[in-house]
Amino acid sequence: MSPPPAWVKALKPASPQGSELLEQERAQSNVAVDKLAELLHTKDVLDRQDRLVAILSSEKVFDKSQTHSLGRVERLQRALAKGKRLQQLAVQNKWSQEEFYAAADLIGEPTPYGLHSTMFLVTLREQGTPEQHKLFLEPATNYKIIGCYAQTELGHGSNVRGLETTATWNPDDKTFTINSPSLTASKWWIGSLGKVANHAVVMAQLYVGGKNYGPHPFVVQIRDMETHEPLENVYVGDIGPKFGYNTMDNGFLLFNNVKVPHISMLGRFAQVDKATNKYVRPSMPTLIYGTMTWVRSNIVFQAGSVLARGVTIATRYCAVRRQFQDRDATDQASETQVLNYKMVQIRLLPLLAAMYALHFTGRGMMRLYQENQSRMKAAAQADQEKRGAGPEELRAGADLLADLHATSCGLKALASTTAGEGLEVCRRACGGHGYSSYSGIGPWYADYLPTLTWEGDNYMLTQQVARYLLKAARAVLAGKGTNSDTSKILQFYLSRREKGGSFDILDTDSDIVAAFAWRTAHLTFEALKHRDVGKRSWNSLLVNFWRLSTAHSQYLVVKNFYEAVNSPEITGALDKETTTTLHNLFRLYALHTLEQEAAEFFSSGAVTTHQISLVQTKAVMKLLDNIRPHAVRLVDAWKFPDWQLDSSLGRYDGKVYEDLFRRASEENPVNDLVFDPYPWNANVLKNQAPKSKL
Amino acid sequence: MSPPPAWVKALKPASPQGSELLEQERAQSNVAVDKLAELLHTKDVLDRQDRLVAILSSEKVFDKSQTHSLGRVERLQRALAKGKRLQQLAVQNKWSQEEFYAAADLIGEPTPYGLHSTMFLVTLREQGTPEQHKLFLEPATNYKIIGCYAQTELGHGSNVRGLETTATWNPDDKTFTINSPSLTASKWWIGSLGKVANHAVVMAQLYVGGKNYGPHPFVVQIRDMETHEPLENVYVGDIGPKFGYNTMDNGFLLFNNVKVPHISMLGRFAQVDKATNKYVRPSMPTLIYGTMTWVRSNIVFQAGSVLARGVTIATRYCAVRRQFQDRDATDQASETQVLNYKMVQIRLLPLLAAMYALHFTGRGMMRLYQENQSRMKAAAQADQEKRGAGPEELRAGADLLADLHATSCGLKALASTTAGEGLEVCRRACGGHGYSSYSGIGPWYADYLPTLTWEGDNYMLTQQVARYLLKAARAVLAGKGTNSDTSKILQFYLSRREKGGSFDILDTDSDIVAAFAWRTAHLTFEALKHRDVGKRSWNSLLVNFWRLSTAHSQYLVVKNFYEAVNSPEITGALDKETTTTLHNLFRLYALHTLEQEAAEFFSSGAVTTHQISLVQTKAVMKLLDNIRPHAVRLVDAWKFPDWQLDSSLGRYDGKVYEDLFRRASEENPVNDLVFDPYPWNANVLKNQAPKSKL
Repeated sequence: MSPPPAWVKALKPASPQGSELLEQERAQSNVAVDKLAELLHTKDVLDRQDRLVAILSSEKVFDKSQTHSLGRVERLQRALAKGKRLQQLAVQNKWSQEEFYAAADLIGEPTPYGLHSTMFLVTLREQGTPEQHKLFLEPATNYKIIGCYAQTELGHGSNVRGLETTATWNPDDKTFTINSPSLTASKWWIGSLGKVANHAVVMAQLYVGGKNYGPHPFVVQIRDMETHEPLENVYVGDIGPKFGYNTMDNGFLLFNNVKVPHISMLGRFAQVDKATNKYVRPSMPTLIYGTMTWVRSNIVFQAGSVLARGVTIATRYCAVRRQFQDRDATDQASETQVLNYKMVQIRLLPLLAAMYALHFTGRGMMRLYQENQSRMKAAAQADQEKRGAGPEELRAGADLLADLHATSCGLKALASTTAGEGLEVCRRACGGHGYSSYSGIGPWYADYLPTLTWEGDNYMLTQQVARYLLKAARAVLAGKGTNSDTSKILQFYLSRREKGGSFDILDTDSDIVAAFAWRTAHLTFEALKHRDVGKRSWNSLLVNFWRLSTAHSQYLVVKNFYEAVNSPEITGALDKETTTTLHNLFRLYALHTLEQEAAEFFSSGAVTTHQISLVQTKAVMKLLDNIRPHAVRLVDAWKFPDWQLDSSLGRYDGKVYEDLFRRASEENPVNDLVFDPYPWNANVLKNQAPKSKL
Repeated sequence: MSPPPAWVKALKPASPQGSELLEQERAQSNVAVDKLAELLHTKDVLDRQDRLVAILSSEKVFDKSQTHSLGRVERLQRALAKGKRLQQLAVQNKWSQEEFYAAADLIGEPTPYGLHSTMFLVTLREQGTPEQHKLFLEPATNYKIIGCYAQTELGHGSNVRGLETTATWNPDDKTFTINSPSLTASKWWIGSLGKVANHAVVMAQLYVGGKNYGPHPFVVQIRDMETHEPLENVYVGDIGPKFGYNTMDNGFLLFNNVKVPHISMLGRFAQVDKATNKYVRPSMPTLIYGTMTWVRSNIVFQAGSVLARGVTIATRYCAVRRQFQDRDATDQASETQVLNYKMVQIRLLPLLAAMYALHFTGRGMMRLYQENQSRMKAAAQADQEKRGAGPEELRAGADLLADLHATSCGLKALASTTAGEGLEVCRRACGGHGYSSYSGIGPWYADYLPTLTWEGDNYMLTQQVARYLLKAARAVLAGKGTNSDTSKILQFYLSRREKGGSFDILDTDSDIVAAFAWRTAHLTFEALKHRDVGKRSWNSLLVNFWRLSTAHSQYLVVKNFYEAVNSPEITGALDKETTTTLHNLFRLYALHTLEQEAAEFFSSGAVTTHQISLVQTKAVMKLLDNIRPHAVRLVDAWKFPDWQLDSSLGRYDGKVYEDLFRRASEENPVNDLVFDPYPWNANVLKNQAPKSKL
């Protein structure tokens, strides 16, 4: 549109200015933003972030200004251009993998290389033999082969065993025939498949000698390396527009009896022996199990930051936005910052607490995972070298992995649900402007939502947790409790069951943690009674299992957060005001959760109804008061660059209205057109050649 | 892309087919779909729907196939073309206003005429004088003037009194000067303003003789009637892309001291007298109050159908989708329909109940509103004709309107939150495919979300309800209770307070309603005690007020639903199986809500913890079992045409996978391109002229 005339340029927002309000916010708290930031992310990561933003923001290809106005065809092309440039920069600057991922994160949207650079490479690396590494992994690492991981089918998502695609061993010519026997066998949702992949790791039911050995991975070329056209008897394309993630080419793929050589089957954990035509398993598959655990732990770890983006935007904007006078205020002239309203605080501040809680929990998960991995590797090596001592340690490791597996399932579900739903709460807390794409929350929310479904649907996963807890409870009842935390909280509950919990949740932090443990134990034994004594069907207990998993995962978050804020790592590095504030965040997260789930806490005997009433009317309200002055600094500590947030509302400098106006008037392609508004004129645009038909 | 080859065309989904599964679903229930549909919508409305779908679906301009792939510029143009054609059809077919709205509904997306054909026309009609009707309303009705309703500003949404735009009376030349004194004074979010309006009703602070009389409406021309370019000293445009609603041209608008004549101020309820230069109020403003109540009542009424779209899609798809074997099933060969899982039922079936509950509640609201309107009109007429008897009735009417106002505020918040959040639950219940735009839920959800914020933010509104209930409670305590239902439930609570509720919620439906009333009364007196005795600040009680409003609104829904299923209108028209099922839906809605809000029910003494435990473990589970066989027929009764749903997952015939595949391979413009996948080739597309730069 025509640029703003002079009289528009001269206009400023009504006072006080957003920048002044954020300055006041930052002045009224002494929370140690920089120290806290280093504790959350490390200094190295923060420095790296500055370096990367400088590089990326100077390249026109990464410009974000038009993103939300473009159609899918254009967005996908631009995303591929971004992916290409990112890869060029990675090579030119010799980025490490961490640097590459960090840069991809900053760009703010997935690119069509997303599944190539993660699942495809990881699968080749972990499940390929040295020969296959040379044949596939090397060119894939150099982007000569572009691949994807094709597991999910049109008719099968969660249930991998139900996949329909087949790979049949042909003993005569030592090949496999890959085939899609039905329409529902079509691979579907496969990221990087729709437009860019020329290879796919295809999960297919392996048939050898007429027998089905279950799903196995095959590397299959699907497009010509030169023309990029689909190969014969391969039907492949993009599955269409989605709620978000539209810069990814999620694809479909059908095979009509396509033959592939023996080397196509990734052979580290299972092979078909060429000589005997027999199926053989040269190694143990627990490590695969470990990969999914890693993926889920990573989702837990990221959830804190995912949520923090929304909370940062909403908190800053609610400090800038003013609306109505406080009814009881003496100064009736000026309006109140929205962040002062208790109805806003009760929505935002528990999420501020949750982003810290999830961050520390995710960190705990990753540490546990890595410890366990090194222990497993050591045991495996011992196994190979000596035989004898190894296997037992391996089994112990496998037990721990089972615990980690269950924990990662439950926490993945809780963390991604908290982050996803929390982002929408943040968006709504921004009022009308939250709905603008320039708020930066909506697009981020829409792109994040699949996380609640993939890597195990959040509802499905809760069964894994329940299964694990029921097993642990049976062991405890049979006198076979272990030294694990789960075993201990179940034993403690049994020993005190008659007396009830009587925890002092209002004054003693460790008692809050104990109350969460108590509730988990109570729900576990309740579910066990229904299943083992009442002989209730598994299906009829799914709702109980979901509640149980949620309860257990909330306990884990509360416990991790509690341990973190009391750890020397934090108390030693930070001043009193900052650590006190972190303690208050812990209490707010825990007590607000307790209040939300009040019915379970009192019916388990963990707390009394009087305590819950005090939590609701006194404790939580007081915590909101205590945390309020520090809110802006607490989000500042997350150190999101403005360029990453891409949000008018969440700008560090508080120039919310100037930026909304600038983007609407300068970056909005709709304003380059003049419409013809009259229904009886067929043309939609002025100065357009007449159309024969509307 | 190239059309599917023969071998692809020959593929079918794995058996059983979706069509067979839906046939089975429909065969296993005798719910009277057609009779129920007529009861919900009336036969006339259903016939009209068939007629309109036939007309609309035959016009290429209303084709929906590309919608979700297009960018905003293209979508907006197409939406205007749709709006134009719709208006042409309305004139050609002599549609009534109801027919026009019904057709607009079927199109499935807002058009840029949306606010012209509603708020602009309504405001002119209701607030204009006969002279203004001739000058503005007539040409506007004929789309010669295209207008919008410009109230919200960049810095002011909820707080209308805080608007910054001014209209200053100039006694010398008998004009008003409209001005935007700051950037935050810019009108913002105004539908139909961004591109199509040439006039606006501008809400501005009226200044007469230096005194501010608050916000008043002015009709202001903003664009040239021929060129459609903005007039001088007017800066106007579209505010940019949004989370949804992208086919609407929400706009911004700034004035630089623009003079408009005296006739511009809509003069039915207030004027500036030309002769005396005095502000005069010729009529009472309660009717304006009434308009907002009508708008909110309408939102309540529509919420049931809004939600029903999502529930229809999810229920049908969950009956077609099969995943995993039931763990306890004897037949391990075939997979279970997802709808059989309790974890799916507990998410979907309470929403199925809620859509009926909201529908009947909305209907009750509309009836009450209309009754009250006719009473008010009669009283106003009596007032004009006789003087004396009128005013008192008018005051009584105003009292009733205050009740209606509060009720509509609370129910608007509850109903739109239930519908909006319910749609997202439906989307997730569809698993991965729910994320595809072809599911039809995501786009609908995104377009609906503003309803939770506009016409009163759902959180803000709850204060109106609390204020009303506190006032009623004070009157009851002062012995000045009235005959209203609110007064009665408060009195009943006081009379039984010591004994507690002891309602038989498990067996007696009327006791369920009474338990909801009890909880409302309890929370009301609690809040009153905090405010009047404890002298707590208004701000510190906002969270209590929000809980109170929610509780009261849930009571109203439960009560309306209870009365509807027991009304002769329903019991007389429907067979036993259908009425029993409706009763079960009532119970499911009520008991599931009670369980969700358990803590408030027991702490108010409405029910015991033992009862809640029975509701959770027995009653709700049994209701899920009872309703499950009728689920598909219960959504069929809503009679959404496939053309309206625009959903592969929700097709009436169950051909889910065929349709997803057809749309991905035939209607997806991304598949017309061949990409160049290699990072070192600058071109994104194959066969593209080389670009100088990425």
